[in-house]
Amino acid sequence: MNVEIAKYSGLCFGVKRALDITEHILKKYKNNNVKIYSLGQIIHNTGVVDKLLKKGLVIAADEAEITPGSVFIVRSHGMGPEILKRLKAKNIKIINATCPFVKKAQSKAKILSSKGYYLVIIGSKNHPEVIGIREHVKNKNSVIVIEDEKDIDVLRKNNRIGIVVQTTSTIEKFKLIVSKIIEKGKEILIENTICDTTKNRQNSTKELAKKVDVMIIVGGKNSANTAHLVEISKKYNPRTYYIENYKELNLDWVKGGKNVGISGGASTPLEDIFNVKKIIEKI
Amino acid sequence: MNVEIAKYSGLCFGVKRALDITEHILKKYKNNNVKIYSLGQIIHNTGVVDKLLKKGLVIAADEAEITPGSVFIVRSHGMGPEILKRLKAKNIKIINATCPFVKKAQSKAKILSSKGYYLVIIGSKNHPEVIGIREHVKNKNSVIVIEDEKDIDVLRKNNRIGIVVQTTSTIEKFKLIVSKIIEKGKEILIENTICDTTKNRQNSTKELAKKVDVMIIVGGKNSANTAHLVEISKKYNPRTYYIENYKELNLDWVKGGKNVGISGGASTPLEDIFNVKKIIEKI
Repeated sequence: MNVEIAKYSGLCFGVKRALDITEHILKKYKNNNVKIYSLGQIIHNTGVVDKLLKKGLVIAADEAEITPGSVFIVRSHGMGPEILKRLKAKNIKIINATCPFVKKAQSKAKILSSKGYYLVIIGSKNHPEVIGIREHVKNKNSVIVIEDEKDIDVLRKNNRIGIVVQTTSTIEKFKLIVSKIIEKGKEILIENTICDTTKNRQNSTKELAKKVDVMIIVGGKNSANTAHLVEISKKYNPRTYYIENYKELNLDWVKGGKNVGISGGASTPLEDIFNVKKIIEKI
Repeated sequence: MNVEIAKYSGLCFGVKRALDITEHILKKYKNNNVKIYSLGQIIHNTGVVDKLLKKGLVIAADEAEITPGSVFIVRSHGMGPEILKRLKAKNIKIINATCPFVKKAQSKAKILSSKGYYLVIIGSKNHPEVIGIREHVKNKNSVIVIEDEKDIDVLRKNNRIGIVVQTTSTIEKFKLIVSKIIEKGKEILIENTICDTTKNRQNSTKELAKKVDVMIIVGGKNSANTAHLVEISKKYNPRTYYIENYKELNLDWVKGGKNVGISGGASTPLEDIFNVKKIIEKI
């Protein structure tokens, strides 16, 4: 069987940076008695996070669990400033592994809101990145998260509307929602905070999906950007399958096909993709 | 035959204001030997303009024709600042009858451009309003008029794009074009300069078109906003006819129908609409 991997596969810049920072901190404090915490997964990939846990990282269930004198790593998706202030006040050292593109979205959101724009965040309401961006906005009464078209009805008319978008959103969704928001304001300032890596990865997945018989998308099930790749691939290739790793592969899927494409999310190591490739190539 | 006139018919605020100003000036200088000029039609309605010509207004064919010591009235659609400077320098008195909503669009365009945004004007390239807005932009190398989807390909990627729109554009076209521009910039500042009257008139025309057998749209053939009403009406009622005045009415159009709707552009006097109504009602 022929197998092709989508261009721009492998860890993205922000994910790789967060992992490097975490590895560095774990190594640095290895022989001291200092605990290293995160809240939630540093990146959305269970396999990768499991390795970090083995190296000593502790995922706290709750803020209260993090003990004074320990080190706290801010996940790649970012977090709000209040909790970090509280942790600092408890004598906890903060290491910020927020993706620089997410930081930019947080900062744009904060600035737009402080300039008096009613702030719209386009993204998944329960995604940590979106929750974190929202927490950076001081004026809590003038911010809304719009996840899909239905949410637009709730948005009232405002003279000035500012828009930021989850860094891993699809450009199609972004365009659709913005076009529906236009009627709601007189002045609309849009900060397109979708990161370039996301765009490139989405485009290369789309192109590959068009030309192969079967597409396999590899990535964490809670990874927003991987889910978007699945969504995009399905549009161009109904034989698209979403797996977390090679263990979930079902060889019946590729039956009758000649060419298989593989793509992976921003938090999917190339290794995971190669593992899937090796198995399919043998058929 | 039942005839219903669309809500929000009759002259819009800006057109009425331009006519009032012109009538006032014509009256004021009636007994002096002062010539009163305009360039192009003060408003886009031949019938109305003909009446002004009879009262003494002169439509100059060219800037050079306007003589020192005369009065020059800026049409409702506005004009660029350079020509007005030249006329002033020739000792010509300028009376500005530009619609205040057009003035706002001119000012927003100027501000966006001076703030460093690459300026996009959405509208008809050859319409005097759009030409005038463009002339208000100092940085001539960083402005483009986008009339339809095809023009978007010419727009290069820019970090910062500012958008204004012809005051009489349809919201549908505006939304469509903005959604296509989104990919071209990182920061996009949209000033929705479509005037409220335009929106109300378009909506009421749409609602009426849905419920009647035949729609008659009355207005100047060079009137952008009337042409948009025809476009909108046709979407909801294929039996839509566009006439300049009652003389163009063809009674075959309403045959077999029970209910006829009439709507008119922003520069169509209510009188013109009533004249059409009277004729159809008699059937």
